[in-house]
Amino acid sequence: MKKFYGDDVFLGGETAVKIYEQIKDLPIFDYHCHLSPKEIYEDVRFENIGEMWLGADHYKWRLMRSVGIDEEYITGGKSYEEKFQKYAEAIEGAVGSPLYHWTHMELKQFFGVNEPLTAEIAPEIWKKANALIKEKKLSSRKLIEMSNVAYIATTDDITDSLEYHKKISEDKSFKTKVCPSFRTDNLFLYREKTYLDYIKKLSDVSGVEVKDLESLKAALEKRVDFFASLGCKMTDVGIERFPLCIGSDGEADEVFKRVLAREDVSVDEFDKFISNVYIFLAALYKKHSMIMQLHLAVKRNASSKLLASVGKDAGGDCVGEAFSVGALTALLDKMDSENALPDTIVYTLNPTMYYQIATGIRSFRNVVLGAAWWFCDHLSGIKEQLQLYSETASLSTFYGMLTDSRSFLSYARHDYFRRILASFIAEKVDGGEYGPFENAVKAAKKISGENIKTKLGL
Amino acid sequence: MKKFYGDDVFLGGETAVKIYEQIKDLPIFDYHCHLSPKEIYEDVRFENIGEMWLGADHYKWRLMRSVGIDEEYITGGKSYEEKFQKYAEAIEGAVGSPLYHWTHMELKQFFGVNEPLTAEIAPEIWKKANALIKEKKLSSRKLIEMSNVAYIATTDDITDSLEYHKKISEDKSFKTKVCPSFRTDNLFLYREKTYLDYIKKLSDVSGVEVKDLESLKAALEKRVDFFASLGCKMTDVGIERFPLCIGSDGEADEVFKRVLAREDVSVDEFDKFISNVYIFLAALYKKHSMIMQLHLAVKRNASSKLLASVGKDAGGDCVGEAFSVGALTALLDKMDSENALPDTIVYTLNPTMYYQIATGIRSFRNVVLGAAWWFCDHLSGIKEQLQLYSETASLSTFYGMLTDSRSFLSYARHDYFRRILASFIAEKVDGGEYGPFENAVKAAKKISGENIKTKLGL
Amino acid sequence: MKKFYGDDVFLGGETAVKIYEQIKDLPIFDYHCHLSPKEIYEDVRFENIGEMWLGADHYKWRLMRSVGIDEEYITGGKSYEEKFQKYAEAIEGAVGSPLYHWTHMELKQFFGVNEPLTAEIAPEIWKKANALIKEKKLSSRKLIEMSNVAYIATTDDITDSLEYHKKISEDKSFKTKVCPSFRTDNLFLYREKTYLDYIKKLSDVSGVEVKDLESLKAALEKRVDFFASLGCKMTDVGIERFPLCIGSDGEADEVFKRVLAREDVSVDEFDKFISNVYIFLAALYKKHSMIMQLHLAVKRNASSKLLASVGKDAGGDCVGEAFSVGALTALLDKMDSENALPDTIVYTLNPTMYYQIATGIRSFRNVVLGAAWWFCDHLSGIKEQLQLYSETASLSTFYGMLTDSRSFLSYARHDYFRRILASFIAEKVDGGEYGPFENAVKAAKKISGENIKTKLGL
Repeated sequence: MKKFYGDDVFLGGETAVKIYEQIKDLPIFDYHCHLSPKEIYEDVRFENIGEMWLGADHYKWRLMRSVGIDEEYITGGKSYEEKFQKYAEAIEGAVGSPLYHWTHMELKQFFGVNEPLTAEIAPEIWKKANALIKEKKLSSRKLIEMSNVAYIATTDDITDSLEYHKKISEDKSFKTKVCPSFRTDNLFLYREKTYLDYIKKLSDVSGVEVKDLESLKAALEKRVDFFASLGCKMTDVGIERFPLCIGSDGEADEVFKRVLAREDVSVDEFDKFISNVYIFLAALYKKHSMIMQLHLAVKRNASSKLLASVGKDAGGDCVGEAFSVGALTALLDKMDSENALPDTIVYTLNPTMYYQIATGIRSFRNVVLGAAWWFCDHLSGIKEQLQLYSETASLSTFYGMLTDSRSFLSYARHDYFRRILASFIAEKVDGGEYGPFENAVKAAKKISGENIKTKLGL
Repeated sequence: MKKFYGDDVFLGGETAVKIYEQIKDLPIFDYHCHLSPKEIYEDVRFENIGEMWLGADHYKWRLMRSVGIDEEYITGGKSYEEKFQKYAEAIEGAVGSPLYHWTHMELKQFFGVNEPLTAEIAPEIWKKANALIKEKKLSSRKLIEMSNVAYIATTDDITDSLEYHKKISEDKSFKTKVCPSFRTDNLFLYREKTYLDYIKKLSDVSGVEVKDLESLKAALEKRVDFFASLGCKMTDVGIERFPLCIGSDGEADEVFKRVLAREDVSVDEFDKFISNVYIFLAALYKKHSMIMQLHLAVKRNASSKLLASVGKDAGGDCVGEAFSVGALTALLDKMDSENALPDTIVYTLNPTMYYQIATGIRSFRNVVLGAAWWFCDHLSGIKEQLQLYSETASLSTFYGMLTDSRSFLSYARHDYFRRILASFIAEKVDGGEYGPFENAVKAAKKISGENIKTKLGL
Repeated sequence: MKKFYGDDVFLGGETAVKIYEQIKDLPIFDYHCHLSPKEIYEDVRFENIGEMWLGADHYKWRLMRSVGIDEEYITGGKSYEEKFQKYAEAIEGAVGSPLYHWTHMELKQFFGVNEPLTAEIAPEIWKKANALIKEKKLSSRKLIEMSNVAYIATTDDITDSLEYHKKISEDKSFKTKVCPSFRTDNLFLYREKTYLDYIKKLSDVSGVEVKDLESLKAALEKRVDFFASLGCKMTDVGIERFPLCIGSDGEADEVFKRVLAREDVSVDEFDKFISNVYIFLAALYKKHSMIMQLHLAVKRNASSKLLASVGKDAGGDCVGEAFSVGALTALLDKMDSENALPDTIVYTLNPTMYYQIATGIRSFRNVVLGAAWWFCDHLSGIKEQLQLYSETASLSTFYGMLTDSRSFLSYARHDYFRRILASFIAEKVDGGEYGPFENAVKAAKKISGENIKTKLGL
């Protein structure tokens, strides 16, 4: 029996330990996350572990709801101390939950706590952790530093001023490179009440009056240029819908004008707009050597009650429907045919699409499978993704881990990933299926940062 | 190498054994099965192991067909001794089959036989088992007693008189509590030739003439009240179709009237009726603190020949199509919005829907994933279900095992489940990923009966 | 740590080794492959390992593209020596890839090389392997002989003259039986430009002028008879589309005539033709005791660029969409109802369909699940297929491994499969879940050749 969250937790044996030792201290290149550049710039200090853990983490909120804890202790008015206590009650029995893993890896890595969090011991850990927060002056920058993070790509709306990115880049005291990602989601959420305001804002910040497809594209070009000027190398889109057909300029223009006129446009019709703009953007991304990230198959706000009472990002999202992977490969093929297919990473939240995507994208040279995402980003999900990546392409080309998180503590997940990765590769070496050991280490290092570092030109 | 079906079969190691020891003798709460209340009341005696195993078990029939055994020896006129001999031939080579597991666990638990059932040894086991049936006077009640079953929820049509439930509850000599489940399938099988007769029967037993949606609902309310008066806490529906849209009262009424008039109603149209009645029933269930069970994605009678020659429940059923999980969450959301969402358990026969369901239902507080069902209810399927339950909610909230069986011998499956459960949890403890050991036992006990016992108010 | 591709590679322990020893030298019955009968007859000699490996193997081409190797070194004009060097670079980091497994099993089995293929050592292995090719005079027949292949079913268009099959059968010096398979794909690719030429050819070789459904069926009957006269026992179809409805003779005739008149026929309409002809063929197959193989859910040529530049079978194929398994069971049911359902093997490239297919086909006596196919044919895919076969039928009935390959070196995959099979069964024996050991060996032998040998009447 291994020690509780001992040094070899999640490590499969001696070879795994040896590989892990070679990668554990490598710098982190977090090429996709949701950290706030403002919070990084302002180096926000944290008051207590309750705030850090339960202020915004909808993963934890869901778990708490699953054990029947009253919403008052989740997103309601109770104190962080009370909320922390309730979280301890919830996590206590969560055998095998990724939250159990992360909770205890964070407790160990950042707070020096190395025992099971239970309702009984919670008050003691509360005190200990908070004392340490005070003592070590844990702040956003301090946590980034402790985690040895070399690069962060935040996720930013295309209308964002990126003022904090500028400020961070001017602050020479901070070593971590923080770049924006070009996130286009809001451009496609045409049924939001505030959509026209959004288009207005896009007009304002780009200096191009957006009134049809052509002017939209001109505005988008300006924005991509602007993001590029601040070191942006990553782009992202993660809307619910994937376009099932490809729209011509004429079709997309017609649909978009009707949207701007607030006429009724069906989801199927709007596909023409989405696909047309995706192709246009892909060419821009390619020109700027930006990586196109597609986050697929998510469903937002499944619970109306939760949306009404707590709002978005409250724990009401879930895995979306599998859609035709043929539509995905058709879109990539169209981009490719127009020499407009940039380096692309495809993530899916619906694991049933995995194998079809993994083989489908391998028909194109520069499209790869993304790391296990969100509901899939845990022990078995990471293993599954490594497994099918290795079966459909050279594992050594994998861009590796990202946090996709809003929390500065989530850097512990890189350690989690590296342990799983080391074990995955070691198993092959131990089985006499792969070798020699040096090549195993080489592969592990590439995946732990070298690949993405090279791609980002760092 | 472990001993053939020795004490540690399906147990992963020392920690698993220790956890298993804490749960193996706990009483069974079988909250969903297809046992006959009449057979329980009458305490039927069995003649031989052939009758017990091959009289109605379509799992075994399928296996026998898969090895090419003539139907005469399966559902035909051959003697049970001959059928038993043929089953032994079929099971002999069924490496890794759940039937192999169950067969040998039942042989050990109920018949004191602890060796591989092969064609060669079958005659000997036939004699030994039958002698024991005689000696121990194995009967329905005797088997329930031997299995330490505290609670049984049978599955009963909503028009059922429940006379045997009444009789059982009046018989103080029998300790096991036997309650009905409110099973609504027949209400939705509108294309059956006998549908109008069924509605007539519903009118008769409820005392409400069912002629439209309103009167149907009045009749349903009477039936739910009646079932509740006999301790019913479980409900169930397991039809092929899941409604992809939600029907208003007006729409559902219109569709239902056309059905009653024997006009042509399409499957899509009938969805309006199903969904509307589901929502109505959900509110009733909630009022009575009944648990709503949804059994999804089954296909019945894939083989016309088998249906014509042997009938229903003959081994011609299979995994059904995956349907839009969005339709499921939309229906739950509608119930939730109307404060009419009872405690709900969702089962799926199609494992590709698992992850999407598991994350989708977690947007609602009181909807949980059901145990591995039917074709998924075996070693790897149970592990898979535990795995994804643990990844999407606190495993300690799981209601645990049920038999879903027509056989009194199937209580061996609880032992099967508990071994797998103990191993699943122990693996986490052994890996230093979960702790301490006492909490592992606590979780195992909750899942082995405490959770459902509490929910049932026992 | 095991030795690199040592004798126990892919073997799970002592029991696995013991089972493997009983099956490793059994003759191979390769009941589905794409070897060229001409190349077998002419006993072609190979110049170098580059030609053998990289001349036509689109699996390897895909891997090379995945690491960014220029097309010149893949399908372009570079020498085989240069291509081999680049392949070594690509395979070096391909941890866990089936290509890594096959490459090193082939190196060991055919070339006496037992070390990791890396860029560094590639020139040395190039020389060594080529020297051995020369020394051992490696040729198509030599490789077949070295692999102990008793039977080969090639895959042949239904218009094929089968001249080389005749010649091979007349050559008494060659011990391996080589028979054709009746492959109908081209009959259903009605949108190919050359379709009418193809129908003309069918008319010519059958001596029946194909001008409608009736004459087509007459022609098909002639061809099946002809194939049967040359020992054909296997048939095959592997088109992208699976028919979602069943067409009557009238409907199919109408659609087919429109196709012959080059009128526009939609994919949905053509389903009527496909299904009708499938049912007709099934009856013929049954009459001739031929096995019907259905290869499902493949997508061809996802990349237009690759198709235009390199052509078909270039690495642009991938896993196809999952389609309604209900349509598959409905078609089988129709055949069964007409007493026209031959022994059938169903393969799917889309693993999400696996479980539904595996349970669906078990409603029919003589339909079985095929071996892990193409993108699924690797360590984890083979295990997955064994797992779900064992859960849904008696594993002892499985027809076992086939190569499905164009390469004479691929016979190493039988050894790969047998190791995985032995380990799969041994695990059950070691766990005390299955026994006795002799039955485990019996099952392994059946799957390693006996089952298909018996079925083929050899």
